[in-house]
Amino acid sequence: MNFVLSSIEDDIATVTLQRGKVNALNEPMVEEIDDLFRTLETDTAVKSIIFTGAGKFFSFGFDVPEFLHYPKEDFVYYLEKFTNLCTYLFQFPKPVVAALNGHTIAGGCMLAIACDVRIMASGKGKISLNEITFGAPVFAGSVEMLRFCVGSRNAQAILYSGAMYSAEDALQLGLVDRVSSENALTDDARKVAEEFAGKDSAAFRSIKKLLRKPVAEEMVRHEKDCILEFVDIWYSETTREKLERIKIH
Amino acid sequence: MNFVLSSIEDDIATVTLQRGKVNALNEPMVEEIDDLFRTLETDTAVKSIIFTGAGKFFSFGFDVPEFLHYPKEDFVYYLEKFTNLCTYLFQFPKPVVAALNGHTIAGGCMLAIACDVRIMASGKGKISLNEITFGAPVFAGSVEMLRFCVGSRNAQAILYSGAMYSAEDALQLGLVDRVSSENALTDDARKVAEEFAGKDSAAFRSIKKLLRKPVAEEMVRHEKDCILEFVDIWYSETTREKLERIKIH
Amino acid sequence: MNFVLSSIEDDIATVTLQRGKVNALNEPMVEEIDDLFRTLETDTAVKSIIFTGAGKFFSFGFDVPEFLHYPKEDFVYYLEKFTNLCTYLFQFPKPVVAALNGHTIAGGCMLAIACDVRIMASGKGKISLNEITFGAPVFAGSVEMLRFCVGSRNAQAILYSGAMYSAEDALQLGLVDRVSSENALTDDARKVAEEFAGKDSAAFRSIKKLLRKPVAEEMVRHEKDCILEFVDIWYSETTREKLERIKIH
Repeated sequence: MNFVLSSIEDDIATVTLQRGKVNALNEPMVEEIDDLFRTLETDTAVKSIIFTGAGKFFSFGFDVPEFLHYPKEDFVYYLEKFTNLCTYLFQFPKPVVAALNGHTIAGGCMLAIACDVRIMASGKGKISLNEITFGAPVFAGSVEMLRFCVGSRNAQAILYSGAMYSAEDALQLGLVDRVSSENALTDDARKVAEEFAGKDSAAFRSIKKLLRKPVAEEMVRHEKDCILEFVDIWYSETTREKLERIKIH
Repeated sequence: MNFVLSSIEDDIATVTLQRGKVNALNEPMVEEIDDLFRTLETDTAVKSIIFTGAGKFFSFGFDVPEFLHYPKEDFVYYLEKFTNLCTYLFQFPKPVVAALNGHTIAGGCMLAIACDVRIMASGKGKISLNEITFGAPVFAGSVEMLRFCVGSRNAQAILYSGAMYSAEDALQLGLVDRVSSENALTDDARKVAEEFAGKDSAAFRSIKKLLRKPVAEEMVRHEKDCILEFVDIWYSETTREKLERIKIH
Repeated sequence: MNFVLSSIEDDIATVTLQRGKVNALNEPMVEEIDDLFRTLETDTAVKSIIFTGAGKFFSFGFDVPEFLHYPKEDFVYYLEKFTNLCTYLFQFPKPVVAALNGHTIAGGCMLAIACDVRIMASGKGKISLNEITFGAPVFAGSVEMLRFCVGSRNAQAILYSGAMYSAEDALQLGLVDRVSSENALTDDARKVAEEFAGKDSAAFRSIKKLLRKPVAEEMVRHEKDCILEFVDIWYSETTREKLERIKIH
C-alpha cells in the first residue's frame, strides 16, 4: 500500500488516505482502497472502520492532471473501477465512519457519502460536489447516494450550484451528520465507531442492506450509460479547457 | 374479538389494542386486527378510523416470550401474516389516525407508521424501532414505511441506533406528526379523524394509492427474502440469548 | 400564440402565461406552452428560461367550466397532453426558473413544480394542490414531482389537506425555494436565471437527467391508469356537483 494507511486498535480499523498534499485519487490509489476494504470486510477482528485523510484534505477528488493524459478507453475503465468502489463502500457490511479532516471534493465527496456517518472538522475545510463548475457532469452513484443522504431537493441544490460548503453549512443540508473541532475529530469519530462496534453485527448488516440495497440497485442500473456520457463531456473541448486549468500539486 | 376493541361513533371507528399490560402482539391478535380492518373497509358507515391502545402502551411489539416457543416454520408463517397486515394497513383505503397513548415499540411502531397520521401523547411514552438493541434486524416494510415518513437519512439514524424517542423528539424527526397532552389525545385524534371524514372518499382513496402504492410495491418486492433473513438471525444463538432476557408480563 | 407570450433578452427567454384574468389552462393553451418550450429547447441562443404569469395569477389550473362540456374521451386526450407536458417540462434540458407572481393552483402548481427552481412573490398569492377539496384526485406526475420537491411526508400533507399556502408557508414546506417581494420578483428570477445561464450546458443537462429521469419514469409508469381513474371520479355525480360551483371568469 503506497497511498492508503491502515491501522487496527481494539476492534476498530482506521483507513487513512495519504497521497501528496491533497490525497488526489488515481487508479492505483482506488485499487488500494478497494483491496484494503475487502480485507477489512473479512477480518473478524474488525467491527467498525474510521475513514479519514492525512494532512489538510480528506481528498481533492480525481487527480485531474494525471487523467488528462489517459486515453478515453482507459479512463472509462478507471471510472468503472471507481464507481464500483463507491457502490461497494455504500453497501459495506460493517459500519464506516467518515472523519472528514479537511477538503472533501468531488470524487472525495463520493467516498464520504458512501459511508454510514460523516463527522467533519470545523474550520477551513469545504465539502462539495463541484463538478458542474469545471464543466463535468456527475455519476449515477453521486446522485443516488446524495438523494439518500439529503433528499432529492437538496441533492439538486448541491449539484446545480457546485457550491463549496463549510462543515456547518453541510450539517444544515444533511451532507454531514456532525461537526467537531479540528482537535476533537479523531476522538469523536472513535466514539461513534465504538458505539457501532457494540451493535450486533448480523442485525446491523441486515438493516444496512435493507436501507441501501435498493439505492445501490438504482446506482448500478444507470452507471454504465452515465459513465459513457461523463466521458463524452470530459473529453469535449470546452470541458477540457477548464480541466487543464486545474492544478493540484 | 379478544384483544382488539372496536366502537363506532358518528362516522368514525375507534380500534383499540387491548392485550395484557403492554398490548404485545401475538398471532391471534394480528388476525383480529386484520379481520377488524377488513370489516371497517367495507362498512360504508365508517369514514375514518382512530387506532389506539388501552393502558400505558400503544403496543410493546411482538410477544417475544410466546414466540420463543414457536418452531421456525410457524414463526415464518406468523411474520408473513404480520408483514402482510402492515402492507395492507399502509394502503388502507380510508384515513387512519394513530393515537399513540404510550410506548410504541418495534412491531407496534410498524403498525403506527402504517397509519396516515400519528399523534402521540406527551409524557413517559417512547416510540422506537429498537430491534438492533436485541440483535434482531427489521423488515422491508419497516424500512420503506420509515423512508416514506422521515426520509432515508432519518430512517437510518432511527434503525442504526434503536433509540427510544420521546414524543417531542419523534416530532423533530418526523416520526410523529403532532404531540398532544395525555388528556387531550383522544379529542385531538377525533378532530383530525373528523377532518379526514369530511374529505371526498373517492378522491382521498385515489390520492392515497398514488402516494403509497409504489412504496408498498417495494415492501412486497423485498419482504419474502427479508423474512427468511430475519428468522435466521432471530434463531441464532447470540440473538436468542438477548431475546430470552426480554420479559413482558 | 394567443395565450402564451415569449420574449428573449440576452440568453434568457421569458415565457408568460396570459389567458383571461386567471390564466386558466385549456387545450390550446397547453399546446402553445408545449410548442413554445420545444422551440426554446432547440434555440441555441437561449441558455435559461423564466416561466411566469401575467396579472395576479401564475395559473388557476384547469379551466373547469370549459372542461365540464368535454366528452369523456376528449378529456382523456387532453389529460394525456397535459401530463405529457408536465413530464417534458420536468426533464427540460435547460434550466427553468418559475417566477410565481400570484396564485399557483392545481394544474398551475403542477407546471410550477416541474421547474428547476420556484421563486414566489410574497403577498396574497397562494400555492396549492387543492384537488381533494373539490373531490378530484391528482396525477401520478403531481405526486412524484411533489415527492421530489418536498419528500413523501410533506407531499402527503399537501395533497391530503388541499391547503392554500402563502409563499412563506410554501418555503417552509420546500414547495418554493425562495420568497421575493412583489416588486423584486422579476429581478430576482432574472438573477437566478443568469446564474444558471453561466453554467456549462452539457454538464447541467446531464446532471438534470440523472436527478430527474428516474422520477419521470415513475410518472410515466403510473400515468395512464391514473388518468382513467381521474376521469372516473371527475365524471362522478358528487364531484361534478362540486366542479359546477367553480367560477373562474
